[in-house]
Amino acid sequence: MDTLPALLIVLVVAKVLGELVERAGFPALVGEIAAGALLGPALLGIVTMDDTIGTFADIGLIVLLFTSGLQLNMRSFRNSVRTGFSVALWGVIIPLLGGTAAGLVLGFGHVESLVIGITLSITSIGVSLRSLIDLHQLKTDVGLAIVSAAVIDDAIGIVLLGSLSALALKESQVSNLAVLLLLAALFIGLLLTVGRRALVWVFKASQKAHTHEMSYSVALVLGLLTAVLSNGAGLHYAIGAFLAGLVLGDSIRSDQTLYDSLFDLAFGFFVTIFFASIGLLFPSDLSHFSVFLLVALFLLALATKTAGGLAGALPAFKNYRKSFLVGLGLCPRGEVALVVVKVSLAAGLLSAALFSTLTIVIIGTVLVTPLLLAWGFSSPKKGQESPSDAR
Amino acid sequence: MDTLPALLIVLVVAKVLGELVERAGFPALVGEIAAGALLGPALLGIVTMDDTIGTFADIGLIVLLFTSGLQLNMRSFRNSVRTGFSVALWGVIIPLLGGTAAGLVLGFGHVESLVIGITLSITSIGVSLRSLIDLHQLKTDVGLAIVSAAVIDDAIGIVLLGSLSALALKESQVSNLAVLLLLAALFIGLLLTVGRRALVWVFKASQKAHTHEMSYSVALVLGLLTAVLSNGAGLHYAIGAFLAGLVLGDSIRSDQTLYDSLFDLAFGFFVTIFFASIGLLFPSDLSHFSVFLLVALFLLALATKTAGGLAGALPAFKNYRKSFLVGLGLCPRGEVALVVVKVSLAAGLLSAALFSTLTIVIIGTVLVTPLLLAWGFSSPKKGQESPSDAR
Repeated sequence: MDTLPALLIVLVVAKVLGELVERAGFPALVGEIAAGALLGPALLGIVTMDDTIGTFADIGLIVLLFTSGLQLNMRSFRNSVRTGFSVALWGVIIPLLGGTAAGLVLGFGHVESLVIGITLSITSIGVSLRSLIDLHQLKTDVGLAIVSAAVIDDAIGIVLLGSLSALALKESQVSNLAVLLLLAALFIGLLLTVGRRALVWVFKASQKAHTHEMSYSVALVLGLLTAVLSNGAGLHYAIGAFLAGLVLGDSIRSDQTLYDSLFDLAFGFFVTIFFASIGLLFPSDLSHFSVFLLVALFLLALATKTAGGLAGALPAFKNYRKSFLVGLGLCPRGEVALVVVKVSLAAGLLSAALFSTLTIVIIGTVLVTPLLLAWGFSSPKKGQESPSDAR
Repeated sequence: MDTLPALLIVLVVAKVLGELVERAGFPALVGEIAAGALLGPALLGIVTMDDTIGTFADIGLIVLLFTSGLQLNMRSFRNSVRTGFSVALWGVIIPLLGGTAAGLVLGFGHVESLVIGITLSITSIGVSLRSLIDLHQLKTDVGLAIVSAAVIDDAIGIVLLGSLSALALKESQVSNLAVLLLLAALFIGLLLTVGRRALVWVFKASQKAHTHEMSYSVALVLGLLTAVLSNGAGLHYAIGAFLAGLVLGDSIRSDQTLYDSLFDLAFGFFVTIFFASIGLLFPSDLSHFSVFLLVALFLLALATKTAGGLAGALPAFKNYRKSFLVGLGLCPRGEVALVVVKVSLAAGLLSAALFSTLTIVIIGTVLVTPLLLAWGFSSPKKGQESPSDAR
């Protein structure tokens, strides 16, 4: 199919299924991913992932993270970072150890078991954020803890991915990791000091331009640029986009028309393509792997992440329900985990059967977590944001 | 270069040059095309046209035409159609005959001369519209005459392209043309009757959806869908997008936030990529053709279209200056003319040297016409729209 009709049909089916799922009381993203699975190679085979759809999906993830950053206040985010560290750390260690141990018990080799552990340890910041937005929980204390943990988790994930690549390429692992960490720290440090002033200055300058759409273009450009630079510094581009949004939040929130327009661009178009593209990755050949393994790894993925998040959040929240919701919110694995299994397959660290199984586990967590979160948040307790307060 | 950084650099350079050109008092699109020529193979060679940039450019042309349709009132457009027919007809016949005759005089064969004639006869509706928008002249009597003539011209152009393809493929020309015309007439007829009600109904239904961005998505989907269908019916997709905008104008104009948001999407992002992509097509190898031929064909392109437009508009306007401006407004050749020379080159109807020459002539008219129009409209006369009235 030509690219334009393909994009069009993806957008239409994803929006329709998203609306149906939302009317049933669940986050729309579940319908959007289902639309991708329906149209993609797994079922109908009408649309396949290509470079162009991939670029639209990349922009989708970037504007999702950028607009998420825009919604948050730098100060409230900074306050949640300490809890976020503890949550992210436990939320990575328990799935990493649990996944590796389970791999060994199930009879896989050392390397394959390690790949299982790494895959289960990296949260999808995109899916976590979108679930919170769809459920109007982004700005609550639980939401903020999930977001900051997911950002830090993503940074840890990149380090794990780096060590995996080093393992795959049989390079000296230690020096590589040191360079990675240094570059990432340098990028975040520069962005939050010099970069912060530069971004705000450029945006304010754009408001004086002769062309009306200039501040819109500039906001978009700054989000994309920081994302691309973040990717260049070895971090996932989601992190750069999120931090750019956080930095520009105060300036852009003061222009309500622009703010609304950026949300329309994100949630009315690109973000939907991103979630549908996750569904497009659902594998078509489901013949050669065991249902037992799939179910076991899937339950392990949910249990270890929830336990890790709970353990990390409990000292701060001192409340089992909230801490449990934090753990649940970190359950979706996504972009980075999919890269981990792809890199491992290409490097021969993973069998094709285990690759397909892990891919389904990843997409499974993305589909199921929002449903569990909707259920978890549904009993109204104190500290919950009123829906009218959020988009 | 990766696609995302390439898109980003195109957007940044195009916006900066567009702003500079606009501050100098000329339409921003000239700067955007220049940005493409600067970054593309003709000069720096940093960015090359690929499928992904092509898809962004296609969407750019579609949203340009769609938002242009949105701005216009169906009734005032309908009133301008009769003048439009006369202008379009003369504006095609004179360049067609003039171009073919000039080709024969300059010593080209019959087929090559005919290709020259066809190339010079098809106006770029995208560039004409954007020039009028940048100059705040879209809704004036001159602007409306140019728009309706450009739409009809585009339909005639598709017929000429069809006959050229038939010539290239040595098929029976007459039956092919009849089918083309019938399909095109059927599409426009259905769109303006049943389709009109259906589009408005779907849009109104979307306003009741649970997701806030739904009416934005639906407006976009309806524009893209009509464009794709129009392309399927043998018309250029620009025509479908324009008519969809015209049909949905009343409904969408009543929601100012949505209307603004669609303009941001168009002029803040996609439309800029479309104009920059025209510059990317500027050929890199300028060694093997004659400056004399280039200048001769370029002047012929401007003279014949202006004369044709003038002849067609004079009976209605009874005013030389306005009729001259109508002719000038039709001078840019673009999307369809580029397809004509590409098809002809591929079919062996055109030498590589003449192909490059015609490509430069086409891009030259796109760069020069907005400057001429800015000069032509600059002496304030009655019937001119006040700039504050338009975006």
